[in-house]
Amino acid sequence: MSTLTWHFPPARVEAELERLLPALPGASERGLASLRLAMRDSALCGGKLTRPMLLLESAFVVGGPNFPIQNALGAACALELIHAYSLVHDDLPAMDDAQTRRGKPACHIKHGEATAILAGDALQTLAFESVTNCEGSAGTVLEVVKLIAQAAGEAGMAGGQALDLDWTRDGGTRQISPAQLTELHALKTGALIRVSAHAGAILGQGDEHQVESLRRYGENLGRAFQLWDDVLDVIGDPAVMGKASTDAQNDKMTAPAVFGLENAQRMAREASDNAIDALAAFGPQAQTLRQLARFIVQRNK
Amino acid sequence: MSTLTWHFPPARVEAELERLLPALPGASERGLASLRLAMRDSALCGGKLTRPMLLLESAFVVGGPNFPIQNALGAACALELIHAYSLVHDDLPAMDDAQTRRGKPACHIKHGEATAILAGDALQTLAFESVTNCEGSAGTVLEVVKLIAQAAGEAGMAGGQALDLDWTRDGGTRQISPAQLTELHALKTGALIRVSAHAGAILGQGDEHQVESLRRYGENLGRAFQLWDDVLDVIGDPAVMGKASTDAQNDKMTAPAVFGLENAQRMAREASDNAIDALAAFGPQAQTLRQLARFIVQRNK
Repeated sequence: MSTLTWHFPPARVEAELERLLPALPGASERGLASLRLAMRDSALCGGKLTRPMLLLESAFVVGGPNFPIQNALGAACALELIHAYSLVHDDLPAMDDAQTRRGKPACHIKHGEATAILAGDALQTLAFESVTNCEGSAGTVLEVVKLIAQAAGEAGMAGGQALDLDWTRDGGTRQISPAQLTELHALKTGALIRVSAHAGAILGQGDEHQVESLRRYGENLGRAFQLWDDVLDVIGDPAVMGKASTDAQNDKMTAPAVFGLENAQRMAREASDNAIDALAAFGPQAQTLRQLARFIVQRNK
Repeated sequence: MSTLTWHFPPARVEAELERLLPALPGASERGLASLRLAMRDSALCGGKLTRPMLLLESAFVVGGPNFPIQNALGAACALELIHAYSLVHDDLPAMDDAQTRRGKPACHIKHGEATAILAGDALQTLAFESVTNCEGSAGTVLEVVKLIAQAAGEAGMAGGQALDLDWTRDGGTRQISPAQLTELHALKTGALIRVSAHAGAILGQGDEHQVESLRRYGENLGRAFQLWDDVLDVIGDPAVMGKASTDAQNDKMTAPAVFGLENAQRMAREASDNAIDALAAFGPQAQTLRQLARFIVQRNK
């Protein structure tokens, strides 16, 4: 992703996240130290910032080179905070029971389970506070609060995690159907990626057609991303991936298992093509988004 | 609380919560059944709706008899949803490890720990979606999104729970100071009660002085509420309270343990008086809020 030319620097997102997250407390406030450290560890971990950068780039595509970043930066950070909260909670013992995240101890391993639950909770709350920091039209920002909530909640990401748990609970005795896997992907990871492009277009004051184009781009990009992620679980080099490829063995819920490896690869590339097609009405200013869609199905980690 | 004359009927809040919460899924969506049922169980449990009613009543006090409830109903429901999410997560094994809530099995006992974590998460998300349903000025509603987020997050309720855990973790080997207990109360339960009155005044389009008066009312009401709750742990009838009075024995973190029983009762009544004093500029339209402040320190459960 380092080869992509974002029109706003990722450092702006990093700096804003640093500003938003509570500072480590002084000695007199030691009771909050664990929570604050856990929040910072989880949200300032050198991630790729895909969702915030996608939001800002989408705002640029419709808003043009003079689009003021402060009209979208708070929403961009909100997406990273929601993504971070979801990883902290997904890793909990009662959920995926993951010991590590990005090669480091998971939040609940390092800070304890209670603090990890609370840190996830507070990161989600901070996400919604962050959206309200967007400047520009209050009506537009309020619309984005709603869209992000819908994408993160029961009708989106949280619902997708519930579906995932439900299938996992059955220990593979039921075979997930293609339609069911597609729905799971659309909710669990798709909704937040889709809303990144969609919200960016709205904050960039795009017209109805532009907003719908970028919503469709985000929907297909999210689909391509998740399909390719599943493909990498099969063909990826474990050393490059940073984790053992266990998903395919452990359950039958990956795209290669349900569709076959070659079909899954083809479907990922089709989704990437569809994402690029959705940008047809935009000129060269959408070049980075087109590159992103191509990159998504070429990456090896 | 049944003797209070609210100017908007609690049934409006109940009906709106019913509308907001996802319907139980049909057979084709069974993967979401646990999550949806857990959300509904936790948020539609016949609670007293203190926070939403306080918000609506505060909006009425400044907005007058013609204040349109739809300008505040979404925020009122949001407070109940945040309260509900906090109870679900506080009851988790890694937190307070409670088996029952309001005389029924706790969410994680009935639905499993993973679903309880997710249900709490999705209830918080739904709270912020709900705020955006408020009609009226978008700028005002956006301000309320921010205030509620600040009251619920690390600087408010979640921070208070972190402080609570930190003291409990030490197993009573450190003695909490009066100032530290006051801060814990202000964050853990005070912030959400304070913001109920504060946000209501803002949604009612109160002027600066009115908003500050109701903010101060809410702050003192929250303080009185928590102090009296601690007092009831000592003097309350377990049969009436619906739980065993174990807090005083288990740790040294209740107001009677820190301040002495009589002092704690006196302080609760003082906070109640201060709440009533904060309403001095309002006429008879604030009568219900005054009754609420008196009731808070007279209740026996």
